[in-house]
Amino acid sequence: MSKKTVINIGLCGFGTVGQGVWKHLMRARADLESRLGVCLEISAVAVRDLRRKRTVKIPARKLTKDAMSIATDPKVQIVCELMGGTDLALKVTLAALSAGKVVISANKALICAHGAEIFATARKHGGHFFFEASVAGGVPIIKALREGLVANRFPHIYGILNGTCNYILTQMEERDEPYDSVLAEAKQLGYAEADEALDVQGWDAAHKAAVLAWLAHGIWVHPDRMIVEGIDRITPADFKNAATLGYGIKLLAIITRDFVSNELSVRVHPTLLPEGNVIANVSGVYNAISVTGDVVGTTLYIGKGAGQDATASAVISDIGDAVALLRNRKGMHLISEVPLPAAGGLKLAPLENIRGCYYLRLTVRDEPGVLAKVASVMAKHHVSIASVIQNPSEVADTASLVLTTHESHERAMRGTLRQLNRLASVVDKPLLLRISEFKA
Amino acid sequence: MSKKTVINIGLCGFGTVGQGVWKHLMRARADLESRLGVCLEISAVAVRDLRRKRTVKIPARKLTKDAMSIATDPKVQIVCELMGGTDLALKVTLAALSAGKVVISANKALICAHGAEIFATARKHGGHFFFEASVAGGVPIIKALREGLVANRFPHIYGILNGTCNYILTQMEERDEPYDSVLAEAKQLGYAEADEALDVQGWDAAHKAAVLAWLAHGIWVHPDRMIVEGIDRITPADFKNAATLGYGIKLLAIITRDFVSNELSVRVHPTLLPEGNVIANVSGVYNAISVTGDVVGTTLYIGKGAGQDATASAVISDIGDAVALLRNRKGMHLISEVPLPAAGGLKLAPLENIRGCYYLRLTVRDEPGVLAKVASVMAKHHVSIASVIQNPSEVADTASLVLTTHESHERAMRGTLRQLNRLASVVDKPLLLRISEFKA
Repeated sequence: MSKKTVINIGLCGFGTVGQGVWKHLMRARADLESRLGVCLEISAVAVRDLRRKRTVKIPARKLTKDAMSIATDPKVQIVCELMGGTDLALKVTLAALSAGKVVISANKALICAHGAEIFATARKHGGHFFFEASVAGGVPIIKALREGLVANRFPHIYGILNGTCNYILTQMEERDEPYDSVLAEAKQLGYAEADEALDVQGWDAAHKAAVLAWLAHGIWVHPDRMIVEGIDRITPADFKNAATLGYGIKLLAIITRDFVSNELSVRVHPTLLPEGNVIANVSGVYNAISVTGDVVGTTLYIGKGAGQDATASAVISDIGDAVALLRNRKGMHLISEVPLPAAGGLKLAPLENIRGCYYLRLTVRDEPGVLAKVASVMAKHHVSIASVIQNPSEVADTASLVLTTHESHERAMRGTLRQLNRLASVVDKPLLLRISEFKA
Repeated sequence: MSKKTVINIGLCGFGTVGQGVWKHLMRARADLESRLGVCLEISAVAVRDLRRKRTVKIPARKLTKDAMSIATDPKVQIVCELMGGTDLALKVTLAALSAGKVVISANKALICAHGAEIFATARKHGGHFFFEASVAGGVPIIKALREGLVANRFPHIYGILNGTCNYILTQMEERDEPYDSVLAEAKQLGYAEADEALDVQGWDAAHKAAVLAWLAHGIWVHPDRMIVEGIDRITPADFKNAATLGYGIKLLAIITRDFVSNELSVRVHPTLLPEGNVIANVSGVYNAISVTGDVVGTTLYIGKGAGQDATASAVISDIGDAVALLRNRKGMHLISEVPLPAAGGLKLAPLENIRGCYYLRLTVRDEPGVLAKVASVMAKHHVSIASVIQNPSEVADTASLVLTTHESHERAMRGTLRQLNRLASVVDKPLLLRISEFKA
């Protein structure tokens, strides 16, 4: 029997995800080895604290505190960067790619901030960078976009990319409870981080949207060139109002390309979705992504967006692809690694030109003539009112006024909001949500 | 500038799918060529009738009536078998694989009937067989199972694999119309074939289920070892009864593996699905597949299951993978091409042992004591009744009796049906549907 090639894998970072990769790779190892025709060996693991007790036991000789030593170890062929953060993670990633290694990453913040540099380094030095785990956990959405739908251009990609927000919104809606108490509970259950800002303010979803936009359109969009709004101002009443109008509320990332004007827009914000839309019915910590291709039509991908096991599943899938590559080095690359051709003339749409319908909730003094004042502000900005719901508010002597608009645009709505804020009858900062008519 | 490698592609079959592949490959060609670093050339097209007028124009010199000449042409590296059928299609496939070529197929009937031989031939001669288009049209479900979820074992895979049936069921439910008239309309609209049997009797879905079962479990299950039941006996009243009970009705393929007993079962039948299940809400010609992996949890894939464009999208994705392979021949293979290790001890579950809850609709004489007779037959077979709905029937002097059961098994239900058929009070063949409690 011929001796099998050994593929040495280094894990940089051994928290939740790292331990998940170890555990599931050990379990699936025999099957994978027989299919890939190699021996898989996790030869080194970089941890922050060597003495920490862990449920997963690893031989002490494999442990190191020095992640860079793994990135530069000539024996290691595959480096899994599972530390998070963007400083040491970037150094480790670039060092390993410069040495021609395969780097596997779940780090969407890193990719979003330094993607262009990372991919350029990989190309220059013959390294490879895989990142299936960075978006939508174990759902193979990266592979779908890069390989499965390679025949397509993508006018629309949208979906739920942050399970924490979707869990909070689902709980608020189902139990009619306010944001703060649901968030507190989500933290206790481990569904939300101690510092929730990255999730609930939409930045995590924005990082993932940047990754998807790059895959689909070959251009890096920094979050400060997106609309990014979070879920922290939504109340149980908004769910009731939305339901009255036939909608659910989801935090969506929306990537739209107009192939006529060749303009791209990327945004993350709470969105009213028609109740019949499948994604409007995806609840809890699940992610859901709708991809419309010009050839295939609309396809949908749903699954748990995070967690030890789902993320490990994606990392191990990348290990499988990496091994196929390593067995056949010399200039081999998967089509998925080749960037889209320089997108001739593609530019970002000015954010203020984005068009759509809007949901506007105002807390107003409960006195005659308020609606007239509000309506005249909107008319001044050429924003046409589609519906009005008036309800008593929880605050004495005030009412809740919910308006939806016909199609308008961001500039008009910003002007409207500025002026409404100045009205004496409007007693709290207005809440603006966007309405989507996506059917599937 | 160095001269690019030319990859010659032959299309065997130039009907709906073949013309779709031509059209979309020509459109996407420049992008694909620049990413793959090769020139893509459709060098030959086999048609049944050379003189037929087609909307897609091809140079006459590329046309041939002899598909085998393409399979054996040393210039052609990729053969797309898009003819359908299982005779000439098999010959062409085996000839091309024996010559070490890549064969791309959308032919689930062929794969189901001859998969073992096809894959053995590919392995023996260094050929490659890709078949993304064979299941769920343009949804990259094959790639997801083979590559994206490679870390997983699969206790459950189920879903809607036949868009024609789903279209008919959706229309029956939404418009409260009987099967025959909806079918007739579906034929007129081109959603159903002139001979609808393959679709509505569940055989097409069974072929696709066999492909998925092989990918997930490494074993070929012939449809005659599955439960296969169609949709032709379902009436609008069944949808109302199901709704009363909190269910929708879908034609599902269900692939279940019990990893304790190591038993596999594959079946296709109309199924009552809880209304909250996402798949219960997938309507029209869409396909939807729920894949539960032991690592990733449940993931869902939805999209158009057939049609020129969706199928072409999948074929072109296979062409992309094929080119990556061809550029690096010599023993290269993707992990997805390596069969699962021989499934030690895996066996098919005896069909009569399959357990579940059932929905039973009887047309009975409208006379006292009938329910008692039916109930005593069921009791004799130890089938426990969960609910009863009695309605007037459309036929004079008869009533419709709908019963649901607690968990039972196929053997008990078959015995029950046999005996109910013999009751004088039961005036029509009973309809048995199965109930699923899958939540996602």
